[in-house]
Amino acid sequence: MSYPLLRLCDDRAWVEIRKGRGAVTWNDMERVFEGAAKAGQEWRGDEGGKLSGRCCISSSHVDSTLSLPYAVHGQDGVNVGQAVELAFPDDMIWKASLHGQAFVLHEDPISANCYKIRLTAALLGLPLSRRAYDIRKGETRTPEFLARVNANGRIPVLEIAGASGIRFLPESNAACWYLASGSRLIPTDRFAQADMLRWMFFEQYNHEPNVATLRFWLAYIGEENLSEAQKGQLGAKRSAGEAALRLMDEHLAKHDWFVGHGITLADIVLFAYTHVAEEGRFVLDDFPAIKRWISRIEALPGFVALN
Amino acid sequence: MSYPLLRLCDDRAWVEIRKGRGAVTWNDMERVFEGAAKAGQEWRGDEGGKLSGRCCISSSHVDSTLSLPYAVHGQDGVNVGQAVELAFPDDMIWKASLHGQAFVLHEDPISANCYKIRLTAALLGLPLSRRAYDIRKGETRTPEFLARVNANGRIPVLEIAGASGIRFLPESNAACWYLASGSRLIPTDRFAQADMLRWMFFEQYNHEPNVATLRFWLAYIGEENLSEAQKGQLGAKRSAGEAALRLMDEHLAKHDWFVGHGITLADIVLFAYTHVAEEGRFVLDDFPAIKRWISRIEALPGFVALN
Repeated sequence: MSYPLLRLCDDRAWVEIRKGRGAVTWNDMERVFEGAAKAGQEWRGDEGGKLSGRCCISSSHVDSTLSLPYAVHGQDGVNVGQAVELAFPDDMIWKASLHGQAFVLHEDPISANCYKIRLTAALLGLPLSRRAYDIRKGETRTPEFLARVNANGRIPVLEIAGASGIRFLPESNAACWYLASGSRLIPTDRFAQADMLRWMFFEQYNHEPNVATLRFWLAYIGEENLSEAQKGQLGAKRSAGEAALRLMDEHLAKHDWFVGHGITLADIVLFAYTHVAEEGRFVLDDFPAIKRWISRIEALPGFVALN
Repeated sequence: MSYPLLRLCDDRAWVEIRKGRGAVTWNDMERVFEGAAKAGQEWRGDEGGKLSGRCCISSSHVDSTLSLPYAVHGQDGVNVGQAVELAFPDDMIWKASLHGQAFVLHEDPISANCYKIRLTAALLGLPLSRRAYDIRKGETRTPEFLARVNANGRIPVLEIAGASGIRFLPESNAACWYLASGSRLIPTDRFAQADMLRWMFFEQYNHEPNVATLRFWLAYIGEENLSEAQKGQLGAKRSAGEAALRLMDEHLAKHDWFVGHGITLADIVLFAYTHVAEEGRFVLDDFPAIKRWISRIEALPGFVALN
């Protein structure tokens, strides 16, 4: 259970909206934000995401500008407007906190690292523009790309345009984290959140370098075109990839999801390369719990496929 | 700017303690917690960390049990105790939120992945017990280790004993996240937090498999003992490791820290294998900004060395 907060800018005052009984619709919330914008206020989401408007109000004249019940807490005490219980889903707060931002995904459409970000956005109903590069033609190693988008010469990169200007966020799992921050896809419990990151680091260290690399080498480069050094690694990557899949299968034999009782970013980032592992000649029939989990994810509302 | 919160259990009421002017010492806070425990209350940190005591209070009879100013918000409205400004460092809230938990680090003392967790705990003043394994003797692949500590057969694993029982958290960077949750080592701004994770994923994907692996192979296994497959990878790991160090050096030439204006987990996890990169025959003199950053970290209060 958490108490979502929406804060006014510069911390002179903040507004608290609590979960509980009763009902507030998204339209109700939008009226609050529109009213705030008209009154020249700036709103922030729980972690600093801008909502709308641009000026601040002090706690002494809040009550005339809001169209919903609220409680206002100034630094010099507590001013009560109309404190009542409100109820809305976590997603609503999250959408509010991303209001006014536009996202561009710099991607290669064949990369499942890029697909992770598209799937995260799709499951959350977030619009995402796409800018395609062909990594096989070196399009992410041009001087322009290195100078502007990512000095590491890699995709995906999430471009975020908002009140803070245009910013670039490399690393697929970090971009998923940004998009999902404050949503149901990230547990708020301290241990569950760390445990989700545990599987996300496992994905980058144990899973992706083996399962994704074999897919790229075998399905997109072609075994006959591999260097001798790459051919020498095929066996080690095969066994390490199978070990990663086996660990996942053993976990999923006892749990529907990697963390808790619903989908989180851990499922999304592991799904990306797992569901196409057969392109790297892994045999998913050997991992029945993984196959059932893949079906669960593909049945989610908002799901989008890699291709 | 954030408003740390301490909540009472079961969400019937919560207590808010705000940053601002004035001063509150850690002893003051301990008196609050002791008073709460004596009154049979249970306190939680911002993300659910237990503090002390075990029973709840309702918002209607809080004021007689607390020794500090507070504001109490019940589900049925707002009850004001003595709302005043309090001021204390973020660390204090974080210590409170981890109160009552005991940590055991399952580690190999030569592993800088394990050292990351010790350094995080040391910089935050957190006590940490240590349980040593020799990975070169396969001590993390025994049936007992696989069944109880980590089915992935790897260290580090952070063992957490608290009100929720004993839990195990593998993956070094996830363990650092757990320990540092709510502290100054993790920025609260949404973009900065994702950007910190970006460097932590970079560390696991681009840095550790090259810089750490060459250190282990050359300084601990010995080049003459490597397999032919390992010897065939030396060149690729050397150039990939140098590329990772170059990217870091270019960033640090313009910034004192990887994210924002102070140390975060991004610095800690990248420091671990970077500062001993010369054991893998990387030449740190080629990266002057990295060398200055290493000195900054080694000068931090609470810093502990790898050995």
